[in-house]
Amino acid sequence: CTSVILCKSVLVTGSSRGIGLQLVKELAERSDRPARIIATARDPDVKDAKKKKKQNKKNQNVIMVLEDVNSQESISSAVQEVQSIVGSEGLSCLINNAAINISTDLNTVTPDAMMTTFQVNSVSPLFAFLPLLQTSASQSTGMGLHRAAVINISSILGSIQANWGETAAFKAYAYRTSKAALNMLTRCLAVDLGPKGIVCMSLHPGWVKTDMGGPLAELTVEESVSGMLSVLSTLSEDDNGGFKDYRGHTLPW
Amino acid sequence: CTSVILCKSVLVTGSSRGIGLQLVKELAERSDRPARIIATARDPDVKDAKKKKKQNKKNQNVIMVLEDVNSQESISSAVQEVQSIVGSEGLSCLINNAAINISTDLNTVTPDAMMTTFQVNSVSPLFAFLPLLQTSASQSTGMGLHRAAVINISSILGSIQANWGETAAFKAYAYRTSKAALNMLTRCLAVDLGPKGIVCMSLHPGWVKTDMGGPLAELTVEESVSGMLSVLSTLSEDDNGGFKDYRGHTLPW
Repeated sequence: CTSVILCKSVLVTGSSRGIGLQLVKELAERSDRPARIIATARDPDVKDAKKKKKQNKKNQNVIMVLEDVNSQESISSAVQEVQSIVGSEGLSCLINNAAINISTDLNTVTPDAMMTTFQVNSVSPLFAFLPLLQTSASQSTGMGLHRAAVINISSILGSIQANWGETAAFKAYAYRTSKAALNMLTRCLAVDLGPKGIVCMSLHPGWVKTDMGGPLAELTVEESVSGMLSVLSTLSEDDNGGFKDYRGHTLPW
Repeated sequence: CTSVILCKSVLVTGSSRGIGLQLVKELAERSDRPARIIATARDPDVKDAKKKKKQNKKNQNVIMVLEDVNSQESISSAVQEVQSIVGSEGLSCLINNAAINISTDLNTVTPDAMMTTFQVNSVSPLFAFLPLLQTSASQSTGMGLHRAAVINISSILGSIQANWGETAAFKAYAYRTSKAALNMLTRCLAVDLGPKGIVCMSLHPGWVKTDMGGPLAELTVEESVSGMLSVLSTLSEDDNGGFKDYRGHTLPW
C-alpha cells in the first residue's frame, strides 16, 4: 500500500472486531500512523480487545476507550475521556463504524428493531465527537485528513436507488432505513461542517467476511480496510457530502 | 379537475388539519369519491375535526378513527376499527400523511428529537394497515388505486441528493433523516408488496401553506392536494418504488 495517511489522530467506534478492529490494526501498523489512534467499543468488547492487544505488540500505541453507542451517558463519558487524550489539538478523524444489523424482513421487523437500529446506526454518530473535530479544524487550513474529517461507515444497503432489482434481494428494513438516514446525516453535516473545514462523507466498506457480513461475503476484512484507507488517504474537498465505496467509486443515494 | 379516482376505500392518517384534512375534504367532495373515506388523527385533533365535520355537510361520508401514530397501542386499536369498517373488501389506498417536524439545526438537534421524529414519520407507516391492503389486493388484478396502494407523504427535504447548495438552506436534521428513511421504507415495501399487487410510492406535496409549511410557502393546500390527487388518479405499475412531487415529476433520492 503506497497511500499516505497524514493525520494527527483517528478515532474508530465499534472497534473490538470486524471492520473496526481491522481499521485500528492497519492504522497502528503503518509507518505513517497517526500519533493517536483511539479505539472505542462496548464494555465486554473492550475487555476482549484488551486481551487481543496484549497478544499484539503492534497495537500497543492504540488507546482504548469504553463507549456503548446505545447509551447517551456512555457516549458523554467517552467524549470526556477522548477530550483529555487529544487535548488542545482536538481530533482529526472520526470514523463512525459502530453499527448493528438486526435481521428484519417484512414478516419479522418490529418497531423496537427499527428504533434500536436507528439509534445506534444513525443517531449516535451525531452526538459525540463533533466539538473535538471543530477544535482540530480551527488549527489548520485546506480540506482533508490532516485537518478534520467525519467518515460515516455506511453501506450500499443504505442506497435507496440501489434497493431495486437484483440488489434488492437482501431484505433488511431496520438496517436499510438506518443507513439511508445515516447518508442523509452525512449530507446534513457536510453542508454545516464543510465550510468549517471538516470533510464529511459516507463510505461503503463492501460486502465483507465479518460476523455481520457472514462467510459468503465477497471481501476479506483486509481487502476492505486496505481499500478504505486508500480512499481516506486522498480525502479532499471533493469528497465532502459524498458517498463512495472502498474502491473510491461514487455510489448513488 | 378531470382526473378520475377509481378506488373503493381510502385511509388518510394525520387528517385533522393541513394536507391530511384537505385530502379528505377533496376526496369527499368528488363525484367519483371512494365509497369509504377513513380519516385518522390524534385524540384532541379528532375532537376538533368532528366539530368541523358538523359544520360541513359534504364531509358527512367521512369516517373518523382515533389514531395516535406515536403509540403502538393506539395504532393497533385503529387497525381493528378500520378492519371492522372495510370488512372483507380490505383497504384500497393508504395515505401515510401523519408527520411531525421538530425544528432541529446542528445546534438544537437532540437524540430525543431524532428518535421521536423517526418513530412518527418513518416507523409508524410500517406497522398498521398493510394486512388490510393485502386483502384488497388479493381480490383484484392490475396495479393502481382500484386494487391497492401505499402512498407515503414524503418531502423533497428527504432527498439526500437535493440536500446540497441552495436547496440545503433549510436545516432539519430530524425531519430530513426521517424522510430519507421513509423513502427507503417506500422502496423496501415496493420490492416486497409490488409483486403482490400493491403499488408503493413516495409523494412530495410541495411546499405548502400549512401549520408545518408556514405562511411563506409556495402553494396553497388546495393546489397541492389537487395536484397529488391527479398523480394518484394515474397511479400504475410504473409508480411502484417511485418518488414524485405533486406535479408528477420524479424526484432524486
